[in-house]
Amino acid sequence: MKTLIDLNADAGESFGRWKLGDDAALLPQVSSVNVACGWHAGDPATMRRSVELATSNGVSLGAHPGLPDLTGFGRRSMALTPVEAADACLYQYGALRGFVEAASADLAHVKPHGAFYGLTLRDPEVAIAIAESVTAVDPDLMLVLLAGPTAERVLADGFRVAREAFADLDYDDNGHIIIEPNPEVKDPEQCAQQAVDVLNGGVTSVNGKALDVDADTVCLHGDRPNAPDIARAIRARFQQHSVRIAPMREVIATRNQ
Amino acid sequence: MKTLIDLNADAGESFGRWKLGDDAALLPQVSSVNVACGWHAGDPATMRRSVELATSNGVSLGAHPGLPDLTGFGRRSMALTPVEAADACLYQYGALRGFVEAASADLAHVKPHGAFYGLTLRDPEVAIAIAESVTAVDPDLMLVLLAGPTAERVLADGFRVAREAFADLDYDDNGHIIIEPNPEVKDPEQCAQQAVDVLNGGVTSVNGKALDVDADTVCLHGDRPNAPDIARAIRARFQQHSVRIAPMREVIATRNQ
Amino acid sequence: MKTLIDLNADAGESFGRWKLGDDAALLPQVSSVNVACGWHAGDPATMRRSVELATSNGVSLGAHPGLPDLTGFGRRSMALTPVEAADACLYQYGALRGFVEAASADLAHVKPHGAFYGLTLRDPEVAIAIAESVTAVDPDLMLVLLAGPTAERVLADGFRVAREAFADLDYDDNGHIIIEPNPEVKDPEQCAQQAVDVLNGGVTSVNGKALDVDADTVCLHGDRPNAPDIARAIRARFQQHSVRIAPMREVIATRNQ
Amino acid sequence: MKTLIDLNADAGESFGRWKLGDDAALLPQVSSVNVACGWHAGDPATMRRSVELATSNGVSLGAHPGLPDLTGFGRRSMALTPVEAADACLYQYGALRGFVEAASADLAHVKPHGAFYGLTLRDPEVAIAIAESVTAVDPDLMLVLLAGPTAERVLADGFRVAREAFADLDYDDNGHIIIEPNPEVKDPEQCAQQAVDVLNGGVTSVNGKALDVDADTVCLHGDRPNAPDIARAIRARFQQHSVRIAPMREVIATRNQ
Repeated sequence: MKTLIDLNADAGESFGRWKLGDDAALLPQVSSVNVACGWHAGDPATMRRSVELATSNGVSLGAHPGLPDLTGFGRRSMALTPVEAADACLYQYGALRGFVEAASADLAHVKPHGAFYGLTLRDPEVAIAIAESVTAVDPDLMLVLLAGPTAERVLADGFRVAREAFADLDYDDNGHIIIEPNPEVKDPEQCAQQAVDVLNGGVTSVNGKALDVDADTVCLHGDRPNAPDIARAIRARFQQHSVRIAPMREVIATRNQ
Repeated sequence: MKTLIDLNADAGESFGRWKLGDDAALLPQVSSVNVACGWHAGDPATMRRSVELATSNGVSLGAHPGLPDLTGFGRRSMALTPVEAADACLYQYGALRGFVEAASADLAHVKPHGAFYGLTLRDPEVAIAIAESVTAVDPDLMLVLLAGPTAERVLADGFRVAREAFADLDYDDNGHIIIEPNPEVKDPEQCAQQAVDVLNGGVTSVNGKALDVDADTVCLHGDRPNAPDIARAIRARFQQHSVRIAPMREVIATRNQ
Repeated sequence: MKTLIDLNADAGESFGRWKLGDDAALLPQVSSVNVACGWHAGDPATMRRSVELATSNGVSLGAHPGLPDLTGFGRRSMALTPVEAADACLYQYGALRGFVEAASADLAHVKPHGAFYGLTLRDPEVAIAIAESVTAVDPDLMLVLLAGPTAERVLADGFRVAREAFADLDYDDNGHIIIEPNPEVKDPEQCAQQAVDVLNGGVTSVNGKALDVDADTVCLHGDRPNAPDIARAIRARFQQHSVRIAPMREVIATRNQ
Repeated sequence: MKTLIDLNADAGESFGRWKLGDDAALLPQVSSVNVACGWHAGDPATMRRSVELATSNGVSLGAHPGLPDLTGFGRRSMALTPVEAADACLYQYGALRGFVEAASADLAHVKPHGAFYGLTLRDPEVAIAIAESVTAVDPDLMLVLLAGPTAERVLADGFRVAREAFADLDYDDNGHIIIEPNPEVKDPEQCAQQAVDVLNGGVTSVNGKALDVDADTVCLHGDRPNAPDIARAIRARFQQHSVRIAPMREVIATRNQ
């Protein structure tokens, strides 16, 4: 069983008048946060506040770029070419980086959101194009991708990759996550168990198929209504197993030793 | 008569399927360019190409953030608080900076566009808030503001400011420029004469009033149909008067000696 | 004291993933509803559901067009010309009317939202332009405007106008309402008292000035967290005073007798 | 050879400051026009002017709803469910209908744009859902779909359908059109020949495969730079063959006899 893992959450997903997620309760529970960048969620004021909240909680910051689909919260598939994807990613990464640097903080990773994440999984050329665009700005930047073939491919191309598994999403038999447009309340203990399964190297698909997983970071979704409870349940279970939660940069550094 | 001046142009104002301005003809004529950042014009692909075009022409790069009004091209007034203005500016500046740094180039200045520019003139608190937000990222960054009281106020607060005058816009009796929603063809010689007037320290308002102007940079608009012709006419006239065109950073450095 | 009044509420102000307001609890309490049309809030699916909810509750339907400012929820002033305002209004009115007619229902009124409402008050030319654009489609359509000079002016021009007063907003000494960007919980009894004051012909400004009000409809905001409680308090108080709540079309028909 | 056909063009595809297409030259050449509705192109002012231009030229009006992708001009695939597609279509159809009715004109058809058109071809459930949503408003409305299985399916379900073929786009071997993100100049005579081929019942795919086509209307794209020339070439060729151009409503009425 692994004893070192990053716990990351999507956050900063309010937009203007609309609030979503209890980030103030969630962020103290995680080691990394993926901040929405204005295309699927998040607006400049929300981004600034999310950066402040993350830094005040000592949480490692990442950009969470989405497809240009505010109405669909970036969870509807859209066909972007690798170049379009790279441009979209660089734009949003840069926008968030402004707020991060203005706060004298550091942006550690980039993780595409929703259907953008799905696009990188299905099209490794997109994943590579994204990695090239953002590491042209910061060569130390990590890309967060679903643990699996695409992540290994991007790693093999020489990029820094944090391989991700999910505590609060189901997997299909191909090892792909099943994206929920509107995540509902989920049993925290069940999510915590799946997180433990990840540390043990495998999860079970919705059809009962055993899947191997080799992950550096475990994710939960900040827009799930009971996200803070899930995070607490995961932390408690990790503590029982003497698993230490640390930012993904530290996890990756250890992996490479 | 001044013998050193920056010549800047708004550019990168295409959007997706829609092309606007002949940037390839215009950029070789100017020393600085203000690149639209996606809110009033410009999309990620256009921003990337504009950065490439500027660097290949050796033109100094600036961000040209606009109000969130694509339909109105950012030329309709909108009431933003200083905090909202600073957030809007930082978001767009950051987004463009991503493309600039990915191209190993440098972003020298920020100049609000259209009604956003007008807002900074009417509300110095907005100008100060913008200056604070972007210089928190890069203390050397210059803010481009209309030569006049607001620019002097921001300068007095310790920020780097390039004071701007316009070759292709009329002034009202208060020394404010009169923004045209859809700039039409304008006589290049008339614009060139106004640019020379600026170097001589004064322009004439639409009502014939003499206005003092102390400017570091002269602007023309890339979306004016004959913008390249206007730029060429200005250059020719400057050459007659032995005026040297140089990036605003050099002009400001000289001013401070 | 008036004994017949319309009670209207803004609703349908969710957007995509983001929920706002408890319309299911609110709509049974009112006689008219103003449905957001996609520019400041509301998306096509939300609009369809809002129309269904209104018709199933027998509530009279109106369009609630806003400024093109989703980030600011249409509550930031923006300078639209009368023609731009009329086009913006007609677009949104038409879009909602599609859903209303597809549900075999009827669209009775149009009420600009937030800063768009404020624009009509300050610029009667805008109010007239809006009235002309939408009544060119349906001559029986009512325009809802703040009881006061602009409303009287539009009425005098021959348009059907429902003159509005507010139960849950403060008035300044000029009789203008003070728009809150993010309405907070407000004492239902205080709102109910202000509604009763309206029926008695006058409200008191924030500075204690007595203001005459002659209104056909009383409004409360669906995005105020305790909006359903406020609506219930108003209804209870109206019942005590034997005031009957009826759709604005009936109220106006009675007024003209 | 058919001797009666509708000739339709996409138009109204400017957006705010950006102009696209020479509608004033194109509209006099066609019998039907598909007007963009604000999501992929078109803004309220452009829509109003397009309706005026169509009515003054006696051209039959249709709505041209697109995907919510202004940056991609609605030409990038996006996964919408049938319900989402129906809502998106109804919203845009309604918005245009407002302008049409304000001009005392009539809206005859609906034709999805770009990747939205492609979505209806690949997913007949989407085509049916769209047909149901808009005919709930106007039972006489025609849906324009690519001549082929989906069009026949929607026809069989009892909806009015104008089956379309393309003069200026290539076909693949499956009889699907090949969408160009940025249409370039194309030889007018070649397009006119393809239009004549359509009237003769067949076109040839890019690979030389013969395809049967039974169409009621022939389309050309208004954003192709030489669209008016193509339209004139088609008209000239049709005249040579004594083919009469008439609005699709008349063509369909004849078909059903």
